[in-house]
Amino acid sequence: MKPGPLLTIFATILVFTGMTATADSPIAIAIHGGAGTISRSTVTVEQEQAIRAKLLEAITTAYQVLENDGDSMDAVISAIKILEDSPHFNAGKGSVFTWDGKNEMDAALMDGASLDAGAISGVANIANPIVLARLVMQKSKHVFLSGDGAVEFAIEQGLEKVPDKYFFTERRWQQLQDFKNQPELAAAEPQYRIGTVGAVALDRKGNLVAGTSTGGTTGKRYGRIGDSPIIGAGTYANNRSVAVSATGAGEFFIRGTVAHDISALVEYKGMTVDDAAREVIFEKLAALKGDGGVIAIDRHGNISMPFNTEGMYRASIDTSGKVKIMLYGEKAETK
Amino acid sequence: MKPGPLLTIFATILVFTGMTATADSPIAIAIHGGAGTISRSTVTVEQEQAIRAKLLEAITTAYQVLENDGDSMDAVISAIKILEDSPHFNAGKGSVFTWDGKNEMDAALMDGASLDAGAISGVANIANPIVLARLVMQKSKHVFLSGDGAVEFAIEQGLEKVPDKYFFTERRWQQLQDFKNQPELAAAEPQYRIGTVGAVALDRKGNLVAGTSTGGTTGKRYGRIGDSPIIGAGTYANNRSVAVSATGAGEFFIRGTVAHDISALVEYKGMTVDDAAREVIFEKLAALKGDGGVIAIDRHGNISMPFNTEGMYRASIDTSGKVKIMLYGEKAETK
Repeated sequence: MKPGPLLTIFATILVFTGMTATADSPIAIAIHGGAGTISRSTVTVEQEQAIRAKLLEAITTAYQVLENDGDSMDAVISAIKILEDSPHFNAGKGSVFTWDGKNEMDAALMDGASLDAGAISGVANIANPIVLARLVMQKSKHVFLSGDGAVEFAIEQGLEKVPDKYFFTERRWQQLQDFKNQPELAAAEPQYRIGTVGAVALDRKGNLVAGTSTGGTTGKRYGRIGDSPIIGAGTYANNRSVAVSATGAGEFFIRGTVAHDISALVEYKGMTVDDAAREVIFEKLAALKGDGGVIAIDRHGNISMPFNTEGMYRASIDTSGKVKIMLYGEKAETK
Repeated sequence: MKPGPLLTIFATILVFTGMTATADSPIAIAIHGGAGTISRSTVTVEQEQAIRAKLLEAITTAYQVLENDGDSMDAVISAIKILEDSPHFNAGKGSVFTWDGKNEMDAALMDGASLDAGAISGVANIANPIVLARLVMQKSKHVFLSGDGAVEFAIEQGLEKVPDKYFFTERRWQQLQDFKNQPELAAAEPQYRIGTVGAVALDRKGNLVAGTSTGGTTGKRYGRIGDSPIIGAGTYANNRSVAVSATGAGEFFIRGTVAHDISALVEYKGMTVDDAAREVIFEKLAALKGDGGVIAIDRHGNISMPFNTEGMYRASIDTSGKVKIMLYGEKAETK
């Protein structure tokens, strides 16, 4: 949202009367592009370069929004849109195929200041599901829309349908064929779903926002809904605690209510965001035999990005402005 | 689940060696049939008698399961099936109509011992959505299925489709017409969604289970998903803390991650189930301007049933065997 005239006048008064405006929080942001079997042996040099470049583009674009006193909501959406527009991630353009050869996407967005939220599931032919999630949050009395109905809502709100071919990528199509030939093998292999994207940010007003977008899992059937659009599972933000976006085997993140659990450990047990995120990923999620990771940020701008898989595409710019772009585990990354 | 031969032999050995089996937890159960503008002026004597009778039937049937050393899972499902089969509640047979004149139902089930869960959304022509939720939990690798795909899964698992007319009730059909004529008026009136059903139970093994089933809101559009099938929002169970089922304006329960928040306050802040449930309903949900209520039970069998509406259809049998059947606020109830 852009500040209205009234807000501008109000801010001007604050400046003229010598008061500090609320623009005094540190700013920070983290993004992810999926967790899984990511190592130097499974990623080609070309893939690695392309993914690093896209993560860098997304995080610097979003950080500029924050630097220019923009909202964390706009920052999160700008990062996710860039990742949705890239064929390298399982979201938007690069989404995996369902059993029926379609691309059906899930996304969610949550505002830590108001606890407003918008989520969508099973949405086809929408280029940027995260933009639709924002429209649900802002323009619908509902929080969570799904399927053809959500697309109908998108059209009413002025979004355009893009043709099926927009979402066609040879790699993802081949993965569906592999999955149909050897479903058990492919199901066990995170490559077949890797690439869910997400972002969490803290803006100068001290507001936390979280967003997540995904194509789900290759060969998904029966209208499967994963954790990404579930507020409290794959996506959660609360100014009292943290903003979290998750990626991994969604079913376990739902059962673990992972994103809200991290928030609750911070708010109710007084844990640091890093201790809370690590406990949930390495202890509680692992106990359920679930694999994946999260990005989390607290209201002071502290960032945590734990994962119990081999790697996780991730990037951050912390409160001191330090940029990190990483694909593998810490040790492999610094080789 | 019935005990298999091996378990029977094992239990027999325990008895013969004089050891106490695990069958030593107190048992207790609570159910709800919706929260809203329920008062002696809005409910006819006939409605009241029918609703009280059905709540009594559901809770005594479920309690007998627990008394006979049955699982809390079977107890919860037996109660919810009875309420789904009644035209008096907004679940199963008595479900409200969507904008398009259909009956599309949501349900969820969670096992506090394993954190296993099953959920469905937007499912038509299935008489007992809670049974389908259990099949998702037990027979699918996924946790959450939706729409036509969920129905396809139901058929594969041997459930039968019932015709549209099974779900036709004159009262609900008239509510849809009212809603179409005066959508704002009807949307503000909880009568148009009242009747979500749910159950929480503690069995002799000390296992907690929660389940919820609903037809959603009258005139719902765009594939709207409410809180009932969202693990952590409308339904949650964890043997470390509590089992919770919610009813009310679903969007607020999603934003408040109500069910998991009550669990987290008990587990992480050491609050009693009643203090936790009351704080979430009267403070946090009210701050979001959300209305509704929950039933919650902890691992000792303590029951809490707070609501911030005028009334909530509810019933409980506590650890001492005391039966309560209530529709209105405490004061109005004891008149």
